[in-house]
Amino acid sequence: MTHRLKIHAGLRVEDIEVEADGRLIDALAKLDHSRIDSPCGGKALCGKCRLKLISGRLSAPDEREARLLSAAELSAGIRLACLARIEGDAEVELPERGEASIISAGPETVVEADPLVRLVAVMPEPSSLENQSDDETRLLEAIARELSRSHAPELAPSRVALGALPGLARYCRDQCALGSPAAAVVVDGAVLSVEALRPGARALGLGVDLGTTTVVCRLVDLVSGERLGSRSDLNAQRSFGADVISRIAAAESAEGLESLRSRITSQIASMARALTEEAGAAREDLVSIAIAGNTTMLHLLAGAPPDAIARTPFTPVFLGRRVESAAALGFVGHPGCAAILLPGVSGYVGADIVAGIMAIGLHEAEGRSFFLDLGTNGEIAFGGKAGIICCATAAGPAFEGAGIEKGTGGVTGAIDSVWVEDGSIRFGTIGNAPATGICGSGLVDALAVFLDCRLVDDTGRVVDEDERRALPPALAAMVEEGPRGPVVFLDRGRGIYLSQADVRAAQLAKAAIAAGIDTLLRVAGLGLGEVDRLYLAGGFGSLLDVRSATRIGLLPPELADRVIVVGNASGAGATAACISRRRLEDCDRARAACSYVELSSRPDFNEAYVERMMFPEPA
Amino acid sequence: MTHRLKIHAGLRVEDIEVEADGRLIDALAKLDHSRIDSPCGGKALCGKCRLKLISGRLSAPDEREARLLSAAELSAGIRLACLARIEGDAEVELPERGEASIISAGPETVVEADPLVRLVAVMPEPSSLENQSDDETRLLEAIARELSRSHAPELAPSRVALGALPGLARYCRDQCALGSPAAAVVVDGAVLSVEALRPGARALGLGVDLGTTTVVCRLVDLVSGERLGSRSDLNAQRSFGADVISRIAAAESAEGLESLRSRITSQIASMARALTEEAGAAREDLVSIAIAGNTTMLHLLAGAPPDAIARTPFTPVFLGRRVESAAALGFVGHPGCAAILLPGVSGYVGADIVAGIMAIGLHEAEGRSFFLDLGTNGEIAFGGKAGIICCATAAGPAFEGAGIEKGTGGVTGAIDSVWVEDGSIRFGTIGNAPATGICGSGLVDALAVFLDCRLVDDTGRVVDEDERRALPPALAAMVEEGPRGPVVFLDRGRGIYLSQADVRAAQLAKAAIAAGIDTLLRVAGLGLGEVDRLYLAGGFGSLLDVRSATRIGLLPPELADRVIVVGNASGAGATAACISRRRLEDCDRARAACSYVELSSRPDFNEAYVERMMFPEPA
Repeated sequence: MTHRLKIHAGLRVEDIEVEADGRLIDALAKLDHSRIDSPCGGKALCGKCRLKLISGRLSAPDEREARLLSAAELSAGIRLACLARIEGDAEVELPERGEASIISAGPETVVEADPLVRLVAVMPEPSSLENQSDDETRLLEAIARELSRSHAPELAPSRVALGALPGLARYCRDQCALGSPAAAVVVDGAVLSVEALRPGARALGLGVDLGTTTVVCRLVDLVSGERLGSRSDLNAQRSFGADVISRIAAAESAEGLESLRSRITSQIASMARALTEEAGAAREDLVSIAIAGNTTMLHLLAGAPPDAIARTPFTPVFLGRRVESAAALGFVGHPGCAAILLPGVSGYVGADIVAGIMAIGLHEAEGRSFFLDLGTNGEIAFGGKAGIICCATAAGPAFEGAGIEKGTGGVTGAIDSVWVEDGSIRFGTIGNAPATGICGSGLVDALAVFLDCRLVDDTGRVVDEDERRALPPALAAMVEEGPRGPVVFLDRGRGIYLSQADVRAAQLAKAAIAAGIDTLLRVAGLGLGEVDRLYLAGGFGSLLDVRSATRIGLLPPELADRVIVVGNASGAGATAACISRRRLEDCDRARAACSYVELSSRPDFNEAYVERMMFPEPA
Repeated sequence: MTHRLKIHAGLRVEDIEVEADGRLIDALAKLDHSRIDSPCGGKALCGKCRLKLISGRLSAPDEREARLLSAAELSAGIRLACLARIEGDAEVELPERGEASIISAGPETVVEADPLVRLVAVMPEPSSLENQSDDETRLLEAIARELSRSHAPELAPSRVALGALPGLARYCRDQCALGSPAAAVVVDGAVLSVEALRPGARALGLGVDLGTTTVVCRLVDLVSGERLGSRSDLNAQRSFGADVISRIAAAESAEGLESLRSRITSQIASMARALTEEAGAAREDLVSIAIAGNTTMLHLLAGAPPDAIARTPFTPVFLGRRVESAAALGFVGHPGCAAILLPGVSGYVGADIVAGIMAIGLHEAEGRSFFLDLGTNGEIAFGGKAGIICCATAAGPAFEGAGIEKGTGGVTGAIDSVWVEDGSIRFGTIGNAPATGICGSGLVDALAVFLDCRLVDDTGRVVDEDERRALPPALAAMVEEGPRGPVVFLDRGRGIYLSQADVRAAQLAKAAIAAGIDTLLRVAGLGLGEVDRLYLAGGFGSLLDVRSATRIGLLPPELADRVIVVGNASGAGATAACISRRRLEDCDRARAACSYVELSSRPDFNEAYVERMMFPEPA
């Protein structure tokens, strides 16, 4: 049996048929990706997949739902999509979504255009009774001549891919004899597509930073190397869960894997479409997509089961660079486009880290520096041209707002900075909008301020009633006893607070990263004094206040003056690799320079982890 | 609107839904390929797509149908599927089909097994915290070790194909740690599939001779080189027409091309299934399919539009050897199988000729010999290790029974030999069954006998009434005046005869071949005395009586004692290329040795064609 479900999302209304007794979250999953947040992957843990019932029948709230929602919310019709089941025709309203404010800028350098994927315009010799050779041969000869002329004879292809034969036949039949040139997409020894050269045709590339939480795409001109635009969005797979482990769980069945795969390819394709439109280009102008992402994200994209990455010994199916046809990866509507998956180091140090290392040139740098990518996981690399060691800390997505009760990503309205002014605690939000939650940098700032004001002690405990009496009344009034322990309000009017559990989550995350830094130094046999720089990458890293980060012990205070914020290094690396073969090969070199240090098997890491759990004494 | 159509075919009955007012032939086309013959491609020309209406409503026979069927046939309910339209629910009976007797044997030689496509059994190192490298790397390392051990290190692949990643992940997750070896199909630098080695797994190959009229498949063991079995069938595409030109016309739309493509891939897949079953092997044991066929057949298989082959300058889309995944070619159910399309010389001298030349070793032979493939077209090659010239004559499918009123393929009941005994004309049939028609060798024999008996004069005219009076009465009685000129009966009881038009068709065909031989000799500047051998290939060539062939002027009498019948050389070549890399490379060498002579642009060919139109005087 089925029912009708009417969904209001901003100005859009959609009407769909849904299975009776199905969960709302499953019905919504079919519809659109970015409408509903579900960091816990629909497991009734986070309480974030809220929506409002306007009319119709849903199942009565059970005990879990009643616990995750307040009585006021329940009486206002607020429900959780992961728990409410559809018992009749119904009408629901999705929450307004803050606009994502994802850091997409990275360490940009001028990259000379010399791409692996080429759009080659050629004029093959028309067939005649004197030259009866086949279309494929005449095209390959013309391409070889053209590439030789443009000083890239080594790129000359030896075959036309099966899927390009119909286009080749059409061109040769309709256009070749008329003297119209052909446009061929050439990659890795093969011609991926052939068509008559369109007037105004361009060769565009897309550099993609495919993160667990966010996706950043940059459009570039493969001939001039010019940057044409960039877009960022929350990863459309996140309704399956906030972290890689929940995505891996969701991909356990072949259908689940396919569902995750098609979701991310459609998202990237639609971002590409928007970017090409903005650039006044045609969709067919996109001939190359270079993708950096963590190993799990690339597995989901390639349709390779990632489950072994979640279990010891954390083995990925592939790590090497792959060049595929975008169509083979499921990018519908891009028959003549190639997709380059950048190489990774291990199951938890992926192509995003390699691309970042390449982008900042760590593998060629003098001395020894840290490269820290604080995204959904915390990956750390340390070294220079003498070699790089790297590790991944299971820091979790706390700094991206997941696992924090009032946490949120870097969206409009997120509290991103907290400070003390005239004895009071103040905060700022992204876009100066009314506060909707706390993002990573706000969390670090808040903790630093709470520590300085003694609202939280150095063990991470929120002060109790007795201790609060010793505090100035304005500060003491910020703390309140909740049903699951004390909470510290930042915006009481809007109900934004950090709970005791939130402080613990942040404490675990910062301890993991700090212990990772300690361990790599120990493996290298070096001290903090011998570190040249600490490059901080990732969206959260870009907004982070370094003073707060050292205050809570996330970063060593000794390195505070050597921190360089590089933004989206992974995206910058992917874009450079799309534009330049040398940069692409640099990724392979950067990967080869990296040795992976498995933290889970090291007693010294566990020891450092426990040691770093406490917050530092005030400086 | 739709109707139900019930179809009786031997013991099988099928019931399908059909479009109202649709042609019967279109309804049947959807069902099964090999049930109904339509050499003219459903154009209401040949009158061969007969079936019997048992009950129900078909359109009344129009003028064309009444002309192609006798009154007795019409009153017995016989109808033509290309003309009768479905006007209500109906029940029809298809004719019994004689079993095809296709010559599948060829010039067999012992071929040392050293295939391009390998099934490699390996034991990759299990992943561990000490060896965290990815599955792909560990598999490629194990394969490289194994191939090095079996003295083929140059075959070591550098990547696992995208489609094989799920199988690789499954194997590594479930089997690798248990010590079960993996079975990987390796071809052309890539791993096409990975799975746990099945107990009793074998590596089998299929050599395919894909002719316009017939398809011959041979199953071989790629490890021992042993021949396991062979099957032949009429080409399932033939309801679209008997010759390549009508197939090209049918493939003009993308849907038509796809329909022809899927028809031939399902046919080959089903022949492969039957052969592997007979050999006691599993379907998954088939890892390689090597296909020789004329250029149009290979285009249809690859989904490449062949239309330019039909127009001057007769340009194919591709001619070079292709190695594809069988799945990419649409072989459903063969994910781990490779398909090798052998190279061709031109639009009308295809991979079948190259495979045949390779099989007999013409490109390495001393002296100069002819290679003649008398199939649906007549392709001729001439030369030896000093070089080969070749041409294609538009001989048409007369010698395969098409275009001949009572013609038939080499099936049970076909008259395949005709001779004079005690002053009477006698005939033999395939399988000694009651005569059902005349196949190619019967046609040549009959013409030779008719010429010797003066039933036909040297201009190809069937004797008139006056002339018949001069003949022995038994012979004269064989001729009868039909509505469209005189016919010569071979089996009056079963209504089997050759008409004046049939004699003309055979005359045009033999003139084309004879003129082709003349022209190649002229291009080479040589005479018949300088020809070492004439290799005769193709199904028709194998049954042909050489004396009859020289009598009617199809072959030069001077070469009669130098004729070597080699049978299905193309199929033998494809099979050898499947088993051995050296033989596969030999195909490339044979192809490179060939120069194509375009007959259509040569006045000397046209002159020879006219000259050869007459039948020779008796020797």
